[in-house]
Amino acid sequence: MSGRLRIVGLGPGPEKWLTPEAADALAQAQDVLGYATYLARVPIREDQTRHASDNREEISRARRALELAAEGRDVALVSGGDPGVFAMAAAVFEAMEDGPAAWRALDIAVLPGVTAMLAAAARVGAPLGADFCAINLSDNLKPWSLVEKRLALAVEAGFVVALYNPASKARPTQIHDAFALLRRLLPASTPIVLARAVGRPDERIAIETLDETDPALVDMQTMLIVGTPATRLVKRADGTNWVYSPRRAGVPA
Amino acid sequence: MSGRLRIVGLGPGPEKWLTPEAADALAQAQDVLGYATYLARVPIREDQTRHASDNREEISRARRALELAAEGRDVALVSGGDPGVFAMAAAVFEAMEDGPAAWRALDIAVLPGVTAMLAAAARVGAPLGADFCAINLSDNLKPWSLVEKRLALAVEAGFVVALYNPASKARPTQIHDAFALLRRLLPASTPIVLARAVGRPDERIAIETLDETDPALVDMQTMLIVGTPATRLVKRADGTNWVYSPRRAGVPA
Repeated sequence: MSGRLRIVGLGPGPEKWLTPEAADALAQAQDVLGYATYLARVPIREDQTRHASDNREEISRARRALELAAEGRDVALVSGGDPGVFAMAAAVFEAMEDGPAAWRALDIAVLPGVTAMLAAAARVGAPLGADFCAINLSDNLKPWSLVEKRLALAVEAGFVVALYNPASKARPTQIHDAFALLRRLLPASTPIVLARAVGRPDERIAIETLDETDPALVDMQTMLIVGTPATRLVKRADGTNWVYSPRRAGVPA
Repeated sequence: MSGRLRIVGLGPGPEKWLTPEAADALAQAQDVLGYATYLARVPIREDQTRHASDNREEISRARRALELAAEGRDVALVSGGDPGVFAMAAAVFEAMEDGPAAWRALDIAVLPGVTAMLAAAARVGAPLGADFCAINLSDNLKPWSLVEKRLALAVEAGFVVALYNPASKARPTQIHDAFALLRRLLPASTPIVLARAVGRPDERIAIETLDETDPALVDMQTMLIVGTPATRLVKRADGTNWVYSPRRAGVPA
């Protein structure tokens, strides 16, 4: 009896962004594990066992997935977006490193997906068209001082900055601190993309400037993209804007 | 007669990584434009017109796509990976900004895809599991000094670094300069992922250390991921390694 574990990226939400590889893995799995919100997106099948868990329980969920695969089950562990970007893949290898040797012999594969920043960017144009970075704004697993250091260095480098997990009920003040820092370092007119629930029925997308964005309106489901001084707006005939970062984006002034 | 333009991400190569949305757009298009290598991946249909162009002609290709849509055609402009990451989407909005006003009224959408770094990372574990950046190593559109500045700041920030377009026949020396810089800034043991032709029949993946990587073997089809001092290897039962960047990756020592 040999089990297997597929660490599956669901993409940002809708089926149109789910890869055929991920859909196949979900169709074959005997056990599907994930944060309840993501599990709810996977089509239900009678003969499949579902293991929903809370957002915070990543390591115990990873261990459970490895245990089930070691018992010979065909297991899918799901993440929103791409499993390798601030999601379950790293948690699995962390659990493996601290776990029984047998876990290192398992048939495991990571199935990539469309990560949130790519879908958010696509909705508004090409804000990630130049060099960019992705920062997890949560300080659950790293000191806040490191987040601020990375933001400052990213601005100095002229990177477009994609901010994942920008706010949560447990961390209501950090997004304000992050904006205070960005406002000291970047021009007031720098374009900001706020993309909430991208691709889902309640999607809400806004293009604002750094000085007009209200950080209090940013929540856990929002993906933020902070442009550079070179990022540009192109007005459409309907009065809304496209936003893009030129490929030749240069050094900040 | 109203045309439309879809800027389509094909993913890194195989159909298993092509989103249903992208597949639909390709199936509907009357005209398909792209770099010849990417066009070759799109299933051929008799009633579709193909417009292959050279790698370097991004702006003229973008203009041609906009012109065709303005003539009322249903146009797909394809990119490998995601169109918003060092690909055609930024070129389209750049062309639009300098083009006739009518282009700003066109029905345009960017269809996201699995970008190369996500697929490369998935093949080896979760090297992008911590904060990371993506840098286009080509200096066709920016000075090399800026590339070096960004590499140095990225290392200082403790970012994992994904390097796109690391080498080409026209730029044979830069990858050597980039490695010389990285070797001054990072420990010799830092994990490096070399992922060539990910997902395609001639795929070749290696996990090496910074001191043992031979930059002369890096070519245009290679995606490079440079770990941080916190990036870890986990030995598998078969002797090969998984590589991952811990979610709590801290400040470089």
